[in-house]
Formats: sequence, structure tokens, C-alpha cells
Amino acid sequence: MLNRVRSAVAHLVSSSGTSSQRPKSPDLPNATTLLPAAPETPKSPPARSGSEVCAPPKTAETRASFSRPTFLQLSPGGLRRADDHAGRAVQSPPDTGRRLPWSTGYAEVINAGKSRHNEDQACCEVVCVESRRSVTGASREPSCNQGLCFYYWGLFDGHAGGGAAEVASRLLHRHIREQLKDLVEILQDPLPPPLCLPATPGTPGLSDPSHLVSPQSCWSPQKEVTHESLVIGAIENAFQIMDEQMARERRGHQVEGGCCALVVVYLLGKMYVANAGDSRAIIVRNGEIIPMSREFTPETERQRLQLLGFLKPELLGSEFTHLEFPRRVQPKELGQRMLYRDQNMTGWAYKKIELEDLRFPLVCGEGKKARVMATIGVTRGLGDHNLRVCSSTLPIKPFLSCFPEVRVYDLTQYEHCPDDVLVLGTDGLWDVTNDCEVAATVDRVLSAYEPNDPSRYTALAQALVLGARGIPRDRGWRLPNNKLGSGDDISVFVIPLGGPGSSYS
Amino acid sequence: MLNRVRSAVAHLVSSSGTSSQRPKSPDLPNATTLLPAAPETPKSPPARSGSEVCAPPKTAETRASFSRPTFLQLSPGGLRRADDHAGRAVQSPPDTGRRLPWSTGYAEVINAGKSRHNEDQACCEVVCVESRRSVTGASREPSCNQGLCFYYWGLFDGHAGGGAAEVASRLLHRHIREQLKDLVEILQDPLPPPLCLPATPGTPGLSDPSHLVSPQSCWSPQKEVTHESLVIGAIENAFQIMDEQMARERRGHQVEGGCCALVVVYLLGKMYVANAGDSRAIIVRNGEIIPMSREFTPETERQRLQLLGFLKPELLGSEFTHLEFPRRVQPKELGQRMLYRDQNMTGWAYKKIELEDLRFPLVCGEGKKARVMATIGVTRGLGDHNLRVCSSTLPIKPFLSCFPEVRVYDLTQYEHCPDDVLVLGTDGLWDVTNDCEVAATVDRVLSAYEPNDPSRYTALAQALVLGARGIPRDRGWRLPNNKLGSGDDISVFVIPLGGPGSSYS
Repeated sequence: MLNRVRSAVAHLVSSSGTSSQRPKSPDLPNATTLLPAAPETPKSPPARSGSEVCAPPKTAETRASFSRPTFLQLSPGGLRRADDHAGRAVQSPPDTGRRLPWSTGYAEVINAGKSRHNEDQACCEVVCVESRRSVTGASREPSCNQGLCFYYWGLFDGHAGGGAAEVASRLLHRHIREQLKDLVEILQDPLPPPLCLPATPGTPGLSDPSHLVSPQSCWSPQKEVTHESLVIGAIENAFQIMDEQMARERRGHQVEGGCCALVVVYLLGKMYVANAGDSRAIIVRNGEIIPMSREFTPETERQRLQLLGFLKPELLGSEFTHLEFPRRVQPKELGQRMLYRDQNMTGWAYKKIELEDLRFPLVCGEGKKARVMATIGVTRGLGDHNLRVCSSTLPIKPFLSCFPEVRVYDLTQYEHCPDDVLVLGTDGLWDVTNDCEVAATVDRVLSAYEPNDPSRYTALAQALVLGARGIPRDRGWRLPNNKLGSGDDISVFVIPLGGPGSSYS
Repeated sequence: MLNRVRSAVAHLVSSSGTSSQRPKSPDLPNATTLLPAAPETPKSPPARSGSEVCAPPKTAETRASFSRPTFLQLSPGGLRRADDHAGRAVQSPPDTGRRLPWSTGYAEVINAGKSRHNEDQACCEVVCVESRRSVTGASREPSCNQGLCFYYWGLFDGHAGGGAAEVASRLLHRHIREQLKDLVEILQDPLPPPLCLPATPGTPGLSDPSHLVSPQSCWSPQKEVTHESLVIGAIENAFQIMDEQMARERRGHQVEGGCCALVVVYLLGKMYVANAGDSRAIIVRNGEIIPMSREFTPETERQRLQLLGFLKPELLGSEFTHLEFPRRVQPKELGQRMLYRDQNMTGWAYKKIELEDLRFPLVCGEGKKARVMATIGVTRGLGDHNLRVCSSTLPIKPFLSCFPEVRVYDLTQYEHCPDDVLVLGTDGLWDVTNDCEVAATVDRVLSAYEPNDPSRYTALAQALVLGARGIPRDRGWRLPNNKLGSGDDISVFVIPLGGPGSSYS
């Protein structure tokens, strides 16, 4: 089993040289070692994000082609077909060869011309975590026998360029592994995690657990911290470190743009679903829908954004107000009373319009048109370190958060049948469908296949992508109800929770 | 009907003279006009709050007695019995005389010696709102025919003195009325609220609605704001103005301490439940429990508090760190790694202990022992403007929020039976019981009375208070299971949603 894991990881890891400052780990390459010479230049900034001050130079070095997830095993010809905005062929891993872990289904389609290439990326891996060092300080020879494995699925929805999504799809699971390395022994110990550990992991110590900080001093009146919350903390910090790495390396390696990240880690019986952005995860179990994420947008995070603008008005320059108005205030309305919301309010009230209220609201618009600083429509994710307000030098990054919300689903608490699945989709899917329609598709497609047919999950992912893309009619990709399908990139994972491919080990 | 409303209000309103700066309304007295000569001095600061820097002077002017809600109609002798920490008699409105609106039930009991007097306060009123001025700017003679009525219930759980709770119980509904005065016509108009209104309400204008700011300029791409959200905004702002008034008048009138506020406004078919603190409201409908509030404590608001400490480190002085640790870090642990949580994290991770981590955590403890700055156990409410960290001049108020969370229950959406009730209780109730036990008591007590017996709701409130207080055994008030009952002040409202006393007008 562990050999399988190691070989699954090995093909992704390239050279071990790294300029990364933190964390210093030979396993963590910088963006250069994973990306082609120079990242692609977006044809135009996508609708939901603003201008990039440091756009990559359009030199001869600019990469001519784009890359897709390695598990699609695309030939050069296949890559060209996947890159065709007119044909919009649905891509899935080939039927032949090794399946994805758990017989996971996957499908994707490129956008209808919104950006030069598909800015979604995906990753599906089995990752082995070796203990960095005994928690007691004793140095050990690395051995997978003392390690842990986690299964990993990630969807990365890029904007303003594909660089951030590509880097995240190649590195984020490694940062998670790095964070878990210190926890290997602790997570395998049924006792609650110790509050204190000796100095750094590299410090020589003794393996006798009695040399841990004395229980008397650490374990008296205190909070009990669970193993689960340690895994959540590891994933949260991995997101932050990934974002910091993008910030450090963005100039040298042109990690342009930003990306939403929706990630699933299966470890020791539990699924950890971490979401930073507007992708979505739902479990469909016996027809019931269990939301496993929520979307982070200017609307859902209005109060966090407004509070930050209120506490740090320098972030708003002289151009924005932290107050929300239902629309832009006009100079002729000075002195009149208009509806507004402050950061502490969920309701609306009237206020007399003053000169400062003529500034643009920090948060404006509704639904898919909601924007932070009139620029970006998502409020969490990775990258975007160069993002500026249009026609301004005001940075938007301080308002964006790289931290995911992590929800946990304990697989051991339920009996699952082969039709129970976890569906992950980028907003291209959810913009034109909803949880109930997806659950209906799950039922319709899976019931058409034998329960033990492992190809049924890819068929389901394809059906979901096709259903959201629509078919070309007149001048648009239309759905059966003649509504416009999604013109966005669409990527979908279907993870069976009780299928024959599930090993849950 | 309106005469009844006006007389119900009139007895509360004393002189109209006011030194209040905002809002300038002849209906809003300052604290002096409502309180006896000087507020009481607490015997000792209650367990969950810290020291008061500006404690009222213990002069001859200090009030000797305390006050209870007027609807209890207590005689001087009754007031003395209600003030008896040893007897802890349960108090309810008398059976004779006018019932509370909707046949609302109420009961309360004083604490077991924790503070000098009962620091809970309550209010139940029918309030008439007259339009301040036509929204079109036309000045009109006030007439209740153009007004609105709302029903109002409020529980105020004081700490570090009873002054704030007493002031809030007498003034908060008037601030809500003030906020609603500008909305009377708008709320009665089936059209969505206008975005803009002409200048101030006092500005002369014309009654022709076409003189409102032109729909073309105001009503193009914009958010639609509901009537409901205007009422929510009015309640939110009323809380803020109440808190500002306490801040202004605290020195002159010794509005000492602070209070949690749980308030219900019934207006135009909807119940608005506004909660700032750790009181709780639940609806019990046909046996089903519908939570109508959540508690605001250092634990539930940890991330808001930590974010504020992170963004404004000057608020922490050199004494506190915004990071959370499971317990206080010891100097001998410098250099070791300890579990921590930052403001963006819900999980835990290890960090190397540095000198700054030896500071006291901004948020510490669990459950009822959780504290902000080692001082206060609630994070929302009114007052507390003088509250300082023990042995320090560091103010705690910046971390407290006066804003309530408002939940809405539409009474017109359901058929209610006489056993359906909204239960409001201070934490004295909820510390020793839970939603299910309360729902069971609702069923048990109400089924023992005829459905049309209006006294059944007071009997239920009494049963809930008695059940939480316990009976004296050995050295404590014990529950039937021999657990300790609540030694805190306990106050309970039981509001029937479909009882015979309900008018819903």
C-alpha cells in the first residue's frame, strides 16, 4: 500500500532545489521547478477580476501552450482539442489505464472564449506523510511504516491568468503534507494532543514520552484540543503558506492572477472539505443533500470587508467608502437621505448623504455582479498579490483572505451505498444549476449503470459538465430549457463515498 | 385601540425635558428623569465582569432600594420580599388587574446573594409610533391614525451594577420608536422602500410623491431593500443610540455596569427577535424547537475579537496577545512549541513560544468561564463604558459590540395553536436547563390548563423559573436531580403565539 502511495507521489516531485524561505523542506519545490518557462498571458482580464499591474511581459518566452491536469493524460493533439473554445469538448481521464483513487470521476470543459486558456486546474493524489521527527525530539530514519496517508482532491478556479491555479494545483497538497509531518505520531496516538512539544522538531531529544513538558504544568485547567482540529489547523496554515509562497515568487516566476481553491483531504476516516472561494462541495447521500461548503463572495463576506475598511481606512484611499449603498450615490443627492448599511448592520436605514458618501462603495452589486472595490467577485482564494483597483494603485489583496473554511464529514458514522457521492464543482457548474438538480442528475446517471461499474462516476461528472455547458444553438451554448449554459470553465469531481473503488484506508 | 396604546405608553413617560444630544426628541428623556436619585451601588462586581473604574460614590444619595418592572405592581412590602436573597420568592404580575399584552407570562427570581440586588430588568409594552413627518417632506399634524403600533418585550441582564439594565428597560423601546418614526408611511406602503428621501424629515416639502427623488435616477440597477430589513436596521440603530446615550450620561447619572439585551418587536405580522448578549429566545411550536437567537460570548465571537486585536494592537496594550492558547503560557516554556489559534483559524496548530506569547490571551477559558481580557464573559450588550481590565487602565469596551443579531419570524406563515409559545430567558435559566427540557416543561404545564385560560402562560413562566432555581437543600438551591440550581438572577417571558389573548394587530 505504502509503496503504491510513494510511487503515486514520486512522479509529481521534480528537483528538490528550492529558493523557498518557508518552510525549508527539500520536498517543496518553488514555482519554477513545476511550471514551464513562463506562464501564459491572459488574452483579457476575466469579467470578475480587475487589472494586473504587473502583467507578465509578452516576450518570446511567454509560454505558447497551456497545461491540463496530468491525470487527463492528454497527448499534444488532445491538449489542442481541450484548448478549443469553439468545440468545447468535455475532457475526462481515459478509460484505459489506472483509474483515479476511489474510482473518482472527473470531467472538465474550457470556457466559451472568456480567457485565452482554461483557467481551472485540478489535482487528485494519494499523499504519504512521513514523520519529520519524533514528537519527543528523537531523530528517526524516515519510514513509511510510521507515516500516514491522505487522499487528496483539489479544484482551482483561476482568474486574471492561469498561473496561480496551476501553482496551487501542483503545490498545495505538498504544503498540507509539510504541515502534517509534525503531527504524524500525535494523530496516531489515541490520547489527546499534547499542549506543548519540546523546542523545534530538529532538536535532539529523548524518545521517552515522560520528557514531554510535564502533564501537570500543561494539562491543568485548559482547553482540550481534538485530533480533528489539528488537521483543520494544518490545512488552514497550508493555505496561508501557499499564498505567502505565491507572494514571494510572483515577480521572479510570474505567478499571475489568483484562484479559488476547493480541496478535500481524506485522513483517518474523515473527509476535510476546505473551501476558499466560490466553488462548491455537496454530498448526495441516499438522495439527501448535505452542503459541505459555502461560497465566499462580496455579498456573503460584506461585514468582514466593511469592518476592515472601517478599522483601516487607509486601505480605502480617498476613492472608497466602507458604507454600503444600494447603488452609487450621485453628487446631486448631497443632503438627501439614502438607504445604507454599516459594517455592524444586517438591516438598512436612511442616512443624510455627505461628501464622503460620494465615494465608491467598498462592496457593491448583487449576486454574480457583486464586487469588492468594483473589481473582484470572490473574497477568498490564493494569489492576487498584484491585483489593483482599475485605474488606481490601490491594492485589493488586503481585503481578500487566503483562509479556507473547513468542514468535516466522518465517513465512519454512516453506512454508504455506491450511489452516495461527494460532488465538487467550480462556479461554472453552480452558476447554471443547483444542489437539487445535481442530486437529480446523480440519481439519473448512477442508476443507469451497474453499481460495481467504476466508470459510472466519470459518466456522472461528464453529465454534470455537459448539462452545465449546454449545446451550441444560434450564438450561445444553450440548455434544454433554452437558457444560456455556462460560458465559464467548468470542472467537476465526483468522489464515491461507498463505491467499489473506495478503500478508505 | 390607539387610545389603549397611548395610555399604555403614557404612564411610563415622565417629564419631557432632556439633555440628550442625539436624537433630539421631546419624547426621549435622559436617564435622570427615569431613574431614582442615584443608582444602586453593587455590593461586589459579579463573577462575569470586571472592575469599574468609575464606581458610583457611596454617598448618602446612593439609592437604598432597588426597582423591579412596573408591571409586577409591587408594593413596598412586595419589593422587600422580591429583594430577599435567602427566600428567593418567584415574582409574577398579579392575577388581578390588567394582564400583559397577549396574556404574556412572566416570572423572575433574585440571585442567591451574588450581587446586592436583582440585576435583571424587564419591559413589556405596546408602543405607538407616530410619523415624524411625511416622507414626502410635508408637515402633518401628528395623528395616530397615520401611525403604527408595535408590541415589545425586553429582558435586560445586568452585570457590575444594575444601572445599565434599568436604563435600557426604560428607554430602549423609545429609541426603537424614534427610529421607526421616519418609516411609518414607508412600512405601510406596499411598494418597495424608496432609495432616497428629500433632505431631513423636518424640511418643508410637498406631499406629491413625484417630488421624491426621481425613480429614474434612484431605481435603476440597485439592490431591492425590503420593509423587513428597514425594521431590522431601525432596531440595530436603536441599540447603538441607546449605547451612545449611556456613554454620554454615565458620569452625570451614574449609569453603572452593562447589560445583555434580548428584545422582541412584533410589527405588521412579524416578530423581530434582537439579541445582544447571552440571553436566549426559542419558539416551541407543536413540540418543535425553533432557535430565535444565539449567544454572544468570548467563545462564539473569538474570531471577531482576535481580528480586532490583530488589526488594532494598541487596544491590547503590552498585556495581551491576540493569539489564543489553551492556557496561559509559562516563561519556562519559551522556545517550546505550544498549541495556538490565530484569528483566521478554526483549527489548532503548534507554534514556537516567543516572548510576546507570554502575554495573557485576549480570549481565554471555556464555556461559562470564557473571558475577554480575563474580565467579562459576554461580548455584546449595552453599557460597560467604564469597564477596565482588573489592575489596569485598559478599556474593554472596544471589544464589546452593542449591535444585536435580529432574527425574524413571520407569524402569518403558520397556523398557531394556544400551546405555541416564544420563550425568552436570561442566562440564569439556560445555565441549568436546555431547549429540550424547556419544551418538555411547555408541554407539561400548558396541558394542565384549559387552552383558553390566560393564566397558563404565567404558570409556565413560574414553572420554568422554579425549575431553574431549585429548592433549598443543605447549602444550595438544588434541582430534583440533586444538581445545583441557578444561583443567578432568572427572568422569563412566555409569549403565546396563538393563545386567546393574542390580537396580532
